[in-house]
Amino acid sequence: MSIVAMIGGGSWATAIIKMLSDNVAEKQIKWWMRSSSAIDHIQKFGNNPTYLSSVELDIPAENISNDINKVVEDADFIILNVPAAFLKDALKDLKPGALQGKKVVSAIKGIVPDENLIIGEFLNQFFQVNLEDILVISGPCHAEEVALEKLSYLTIASAKSENAVLFASLLNTRYIMTNISDDIFGTEYAAVLKNIYAVASGICHGVGYGDNFQAVLISNAIREIKLFVDAVHPIERDIKESAYLGDLLVTAYSQFSRNRTFGNMIGKGYTVKSAQLEMNMIAEGYYAVKCMHEINKKYNVAMPICRAVYNVLYEKKSPSKEMALLTKFLS
Amino acid sequence: MSIVAMIGGGSWATAIIKMLSDNVAEKQIKWWMRSSSAIDHIQKFGNNPTYLSSVELDIPAENISNDINKVVEDADFIILNVPAAFLKDALKDLKPGALQGKKVVSAIKGIVPDENLIIGEFLNQFFQVNLEDILVISGPCHAEEVALEKLSYLTIASAKSENAVLFASLLNTRYIMTNISDDIFGTEYAAVLKNIYAVASGICHGVGYGDNFQAVLISNAIREIKLFVDAVHPIERDIKESAYLGDLLVTAYSQFSRNRTFGNMIGKGYTVKSAQLEMNMIAEGYYAVKCMHEINKKYNVAMPICRAVYNVLYEKKSPSKEMALLTKFLS
Repeated sequence: MSIVAMIGGGSWATAIIKMLSDNVAEKQIKWWMRSSSAIDHIQKFGNNPTYLSSVELDIPAENISNDINKVVEDADFIILNVPAAFLKDALKDLKPGALQGKKVVSAIKGIVPDENLIIGEFLNQFFQVNLEDILVISGPCHAEEVALEKLSYLTIASAKSENAVLFASLLNTRYIMTNISDDIFGTEYAAVLKNIYAVASGICHGVGYGDNFQAVLISNAIREIKLFVDAVHPIERDIKESAYLGDLLVTAYSQFSRNRTFGNMIGKGYTVKSAQLEMNMIAEGYYAVKCMHEINKKYNVAMPICRAVYNVLYEKKSPSKEMALLTKFLS
Repeated sequence: MSIVAMIGGGSWATAIIKMLSDNVAEKQIKWWMRSSSAIDHIQKFGNNPTYLSSVELDIPAENISNDINKVVEDADFIILNVPAAFLKDALKDLKPGALQGKKVVSAIKGIVPDENLIIGEFLNQFFQVNLEDILVISGPCHAEEVALEKLSYLTIASAKSENAVLFASLLNTRYIMTNISDDIFGTEYAAVLKNIYAVASGICHGVGYGDNFQAVLISNAIREIKLFVDAVHPIERDIKESAYLGDLLVTAYSQFSRNRTFGNMIGKGYTVKSAQLEMNMIAEGYYAVKCMHEINKKYNVAMPICRAVYNVLYEKKSPSKEMALLTKFLS
């Protein structure tokens, strides 16, 4: 019987807890989150007070804790599911070697700031997790639709396919179908990049571009993703698969996308600060584009859309001028 | 000075007339449409009464006619822009050999019924137009956004690149950018197929699938397109380019897409007849899927999405059951 530990208490974590619970395979679920009031609430009322609160959560009270060492101790799979910017902080109390020999699943979709590493590399370099024990879980999957039990497809990537197959078997339910992939680098980078393109998409909408342009933007974006991941990790991959193209589409086109909403506000003239305050949520693309800008100094891949978003968010360039400039680089 | 003849009076024809007029290259524009009352109106008031009526049209009165022979006579480029289902009828009064030696541009995005040929093949076989004198004009481009002068990218395809370059030079304006392609078969088929996938997308929405599934559907759809066009006409092509992927996206995701609206009504339980009556417009995907079903008997490409749409529209299968079946074929 597998023991699965979830690290993080947000909406995506809550959605995965729901899938794990609804999946019929016997397993034990353990859950770490920082907030003791949220833990109390879940223990008493069986739902997360802040995220996807309509989802019923049936986890034994003693399995939910804010002691991370207790939660990961016996786990076979540890799912990391906090914003990339807070990952170091979430893991800081771990005993040395706590992740060693464990299978660690990244559900993060972000880059570790300062290090500019994707989660797998970071775990490998700082927590002695073998690269083949690293898994990535990817959409297209808005947590909100999991709460509604809308059919969704997940991709589980691992260099060691039996890890991916085993973990996928813990997630399949009547509303979750899973694909297997061996591409942890491409899957993780694509998941990070799509947030940047969703911001771009929002900016363009905000400054007045229409659906025709949007379609051109996204068809250029997937080509940018392909160029970049092929440069970083050149293996055979079909970038039109759901984990890459599908994930981009759901983020760039969906009403639930906070990255697109953030970009839209920027395009309409909000400052970064005021957009963030107004949304009361973190648009991951905002952090991602800075990290990608740094990482791409090494690879020098032509990424005009990423560059435009970077220029608007970090160089205070005018959104409308920057997008007008960008149009010359698209086809 | 080029003489360009437009055959057709709908919204896409009106949008292209606007581009040609706003483009600075000197040219003569001639325009055929069936309705003499529409011609009268345009001649008197300078706008098309039925389609994109906000667009000002500045064409000399004598250049607009319902005599097709007069309109095509001296033309260098003849743009065909009537629904595929009405093409034969529109061309039936042409004098023999009237198109021979001319460059003919398909703006149709459809299959000629009964013959089950794309426009280029049909013109080649029935009107003695050389294949290298055939051009295809493709989006992503909703006519409604051209009326609003929203930036749009068109792809002009021709086996003979100088034809494509010359025609593109007649269209570029401050709101139109053009790409050149040599792939008339792939461009035309992709333009036809996307309407089918937009219907599929609408059906899925109608029966209750969400954005997560939608993204999977579309990322499978572009793979279906690739498989099919590679089977029909195996040349090097990047299916992620705007003329293929972009055109699919704008049609499947846009509010202006009548194919998606049609599919949505079918998914919600309307019959084909009642949906068509309610919309008072033709959803090209409805005809296209029948033609593609016939054409694919020859190629036998695995196209589960097309098959599902065909089964719903022509075999009276239940939309919800057929889509549930389809989910097993997607990844």
